[in-house]
Amino acid sequence: MQPTKLSSSGSPRGVQLVRALVRALHPYVPGEQPKIKGLIKLNTNENPYPPSPRVLRVVKTAVDGRLRRYPNPAADRLREKLAQHHHCAPENIIVGNGSDELLALAVRAFVEPSPSAKTPKGKLARATVQYFTPSYSLYPVLAEMHGATTNAVPLESDFSLPGRAQLKRHKQWDFNAALTLVTTPNAPSGRGYATKELEALCVAQRGVVVLDEAYADFADANALPLALKFPHVLVARTFSKAYSLCFQRIGYFVGPMELIAALHKIRDSYNVNGLGQIAAETTLDDLAYYRANFRRIIATRIWLTGELTKLGFRVLPSETNFVLVQPARFPARDWLAKLGGQKILVRWFSAPELRNYLRITVGSQGEARALVAAVRQLLLG
Amino acid sequence: MQPTKLSSSGSPRGVQLVRALVRALHPYVPGEQPKIKGLIKLNTNENPYPPSPRVLRVVKTAVDGRLRRYPNPAADRLREKLAQHHHCAPENIIVGNGSDELLALAVRAFVEPSPSAKTPKGKLARATVQYFTPSYSLYPVLAEMHGATTNAVPLESDFSLPGRAQLKRHKQWDFNAALTLVTTPNAPSGRGYATKELEALCVAQRGVVVLDEAYADFADANALPLALKFPHVLVARTFSKAYSLCFQRIGYFVGPMELIAALHKIRDSYNVNGLGQIAAETTLDDLAYYRANFRRIIATRIWLTGELTKLGFRVLPSETNFVLVQPARFPARDWLAKLGGQKILVRWFSAPELRNYLRITVGSQGEARALVAAVRQLLLG
Repeated sequence: MQPTKLSSSGSPRGVQLVRALVRALHPYVPGEQPKIKGLIKLNTNENPYPPSPRVLRVVKTAVDGRLRRYPNPAADRLREKLAQHHHCAPENIIVGNGSDELLALAVRAFVEPSPSAKTPKGKLARATVQYFTPSYSLYPVLAEMHGATTNAVPLESDFSLPGRAQLKRHKQWDFNAALTLVTTPNAPSGRGYATKELEALCVAQRGVVVLDEAYADFADANALPLALKFPHVLVARTFSKAYSLCFQRIGYFVGPMELIAALHKIRDSYNVNGLGQIAAETTLDDLAYYRANFRRIIATRIWLTGELTKLGFRVLPSETNFVLVQPARFPARDWLAKLGGQKILVRWFSAPELRNYLRITVGSQGEARALVAAVRQLLLG
Repeated sequence: MQPTKLSSSGSPRGVQLVRALVRALHPYVPGEQPKIKGLIKLNTNENPYPPSPRVLRVVKTAVDGRLRRYPNPAADRLREKLAQHHHCAPENIIVGNGSDELLALAVRAFVEPSPSAKTPKGKLARATVQYFTPSYSLYPVLAEMHGATTNAVPLESDFSLPGRAQLKRHKQWDFNAALTLVTTPNAPSGRGYATKELEALCVAQRGVVVLDEAYADFADANALPLALKFPHVLVARTFSKAYSLCFQRIGYFVGPMELIAALHKIRDSYNVNGLGQIAAETTLDDLAYYRANFRRIIATRIWLTGELTKLGFRVLPSETNFVLVQPARFPARDWLAKLGGQKILVRWFSAPELRNYLRITVGSQGEARALVAAVRQLLLG
């Protein structure tokens, strides 16, 4: 089914009742979720493998009269399990309706909606949301929605992080930004960052830093210890991608209890649905299943990288469940359409620094084979 | 399990990174959700009856590999079914993670976060959230969280709406408030309002009016037609209470497409979990089951009202699935503790206009009997 168009034409009175800021907003556009039979969907970084049999069994069993009851408002049991898992306290954790909800809460908890006339030198720039480009394209939307100032700073041309010395020379970088959001490993490039690099960045920042680790389970390292070391660092995680639970919307933040408590204060009272809580709790009891899947996905990623490279694609090194590629022969945007014609959906971004690339989710080995076969055929055709 | 305390003491740096507005906020406190065996839970207006067998069956069947996929981002199918149900277009509907999410979105879409110096006479008071007291105690929290101005206007002493003439004489009432939130039927009083009265109120307001109809299915009338008639009126509904789906967090707004489109622009991309969407869709296919439950709950409400009245309680007329009562013999707060001792949980509010009352959910006939028996015993004891 096609998404319904949400017209905003019509009554002039209706339009005037909407805040100017909202009227001017360009909303975030998520990857397509079409329901086409036989489609190979490599556009939104979903896991090719289902949740574990145990998770499915436990969730099925929970579908009973309890649905009439409110879920636990703070996801207490899940937070306790996560705390054990990450060797911290439940007070170091907040669970959200996907990590998107928590990113939005972070903007509202730590950033003022409008800039004061001018930030005095050395003071916190209370209205600034800072991030690298390219990274998760939701960040500027969240900032604009809130009326905050955005400070988008380019990554190096190979998508590496500028070092501290480079940032110091960087005219635009703001060590006093109220909130700095870092996607690590980076999306959409797939590049991983060393914890040492991230730590140096955190140490240099005066405001809150969110290390957004949606893909950390596919990476060589993760920066979770930083969230338990510094008073201003949060790590974002999600059950969506690595744990095959996109459908039920479970993300979480780990970090210092003062920041976590602030986020709890402004979330909806019952922000996390009950079956999602149960699914995530059970996932933590069955990690061996998921770790085996990470290994399979990483093996497929290595295979796919090799095959596409042989076909003349430039494939960037990835520590995620997707690869960013510069395709051969045709412009990236044309590949999007050509692969679509073969019922293979990948992602293309119109941003100038990305328009020569395709982002391709690492699917199952079968899906990756189908993709490579289609690419080979299109190159010949 | 007791909810974990969320400490906010500790690192001074952590605290300073939180916005002053958030630090000063008194968050909304939802009713307790304890898990005590044998507890009769009449404190959060949940439905005593489970979802229909068909809903449970369909949701169980949906617990499969699809959980790895993102849900439909705009709940398209559910919106189409709701549109049929309410005789409007899908563009007139937005689905939220509970109606709480949508109320918060309405504040952010229609209200500026800080008051302009002074609103010129006759202009929209862009930063004002207006509501009656008592009503849903979340409203002031949402306004304060956003940095908006609250305008809390008392209902009449019998919880009726002030008429237009009374509002005109009322010094505090603001016909230009950017957003006016009306709980109808009212919570926590249970009082229903005639659509004619609500229409007169809507006609008099220049800003957006949300008619929050969480309990409409237990009432004699509902004001949904107003949301499809006026360019500035929204009606809020939920699957939580009447449709026994608190656990899965499904609420929705119906209204003019310009306002609905603004709310869509600022919601999270995947704000509604997939199993919740499926549960709500199936509910709409099985309304006869739910309507039979409404009749049972209303019959129990009438019975409970009679019994408590006989025991000397003053029971306010209710068009909801709860009753507000002035108890006999002991102060209301003491009744809360006394009933708690009998494993019966009811709700008490500390607000001055409510502290002499208890709010009691109409449970099953068996729960209502147990409550009446406990009250009788406590009155004798």
